[in-house]
Amino acid sequence: MSKNKSQQSQSDRYEIRLSGSGGQGLILAGVMLAEAMGVEDGKNVVQTQSYGPEARGGASRADVVVSTDTIYYPKPMGLDLLLALTQEACDTYFSDLREHGILIIDSDLVHQPPTPDCFAFPFTQLAKTEIGHVMVANVISLGAIVEITKLSSKDAVKKVVKSRAPVGTEEKNLKALEVGFKIAREKMKSSKAAAV
Amino acid sequence: MSKNKSQQSQSDRYEIRLSGSGGQGLILAGVMLAEAMGVEDGKNVVQTQSYGPEARGGASRADVVVSTDTIYYPKPMGLDLLLALTQEACDTYFSDLREHGILIIDSDLVHQPPTPDCFAFPFTQLAKTEIGHVMVANVISLGAIVEITKLSSKDAVKKVVKSRAPVGTEEKNLKALEVGFKIAREKMKSSKAAAV
Repeated sequence: MSKNKSQQSQSDRYEIRLSGSGGQGLILAGVMLAEAMGVEDGKNVVQTQSYGPEARGGASRADVVVSTDTIYYPKPMGLDLLLALTQEACDTYFSDLREHGILIIDSDLVHQPPTPDCFAFPFTQLAKTEIGHVMVANVISLGAIVEITKLSSKDAVKKVVKSRAPVGTEEKNLKALEVGFKIAREKMKSSKAAAV
Repeated sequence: MSKNKSQQSQSDRYEIRLSGSGGQGLILAGVMLAEAMGVEDGKNVVQTQSYGPEARGGASRADVVVSTDTIYYPKPMGLDLLLALTQEACDTYFSDLREHGILIIDSDLVHQPPTPDCFAFPFTQLAKTEIGHVMVANVISLGAIVEITKLSSKDAVKKVVKSRAPVGTEEKNLKALEVGFKIAREKMKSSKAAAV
């Protein structure tokens, strides 16, 4: 795994992994993120699931590579952003994160973050308390990712969440997305305030 | 695009593309097929969506590569199976099909098949008449693919369809899967009978 920043500066290729356990809806979140950037925002995007021995242990991951250039190699070569919703996923994939890459974790489920330099949000807890359904932790995470990275416009991701949410859950998912935007916005504001 | 069969004989790598238009549920079908083979049946599988200029025209495709070996290059290099649910998708991707590759089309939506040597089923019509919902054409197609190729066990794909179907639609989707198994089984029987 390369920690060499020069790879990144040669193009705007950006590599993302959403990771956790099966049932956390990370593949759907990956499809939504990819579609928001690729169809709505007009970038080239490849979204990948890999199943092998690790998937059979219950781990789940969805990879998204985005670039304004043609994507010749569709799997991540190093991560610019890692979302980890379980300790196991965090432990497994943290070494793939590039220097200055962004780590986002579920603060209740990742008890031992490998670095203090990360964004920690109680995604799963918020899904329960704010929306009433644990299943939307994935879309809250998606909102936080979009707010932090600006990789997709908010309108594009809203449109995709609305169209890809299971029938009847559109409003809950849109509300979850807004929760994600909000918690990330507040965290970034408070980080800036602390730095002043 | 290679038409060279020797590539295939070097390993059991098998490359599949599910294609049509947005809204036909092909990404979900791709995820289900990949998961059935990768998690339940223990093969290595990579499942990919690519978004670029063609996706912005409304086309949709999901690729699945499966092998008992490690998959170094995750995108198809040539197709062993192409499912085409629209004429446009069929016209676009038929040239990627390997010699002796399997073409499966929606017989009502692909009016001009590029070859008579294909499996043609009225997936979308059957979704309406047999299940009462056009949205399950994707899962009928999935059933036909599994019956024809035996790439996944029926138990594995049933389990995945049940877990990945939107909440409340599990039974409809399982029924759709059975329709897919049945129409493919009957078609293969009648082909064999005609050949005798």
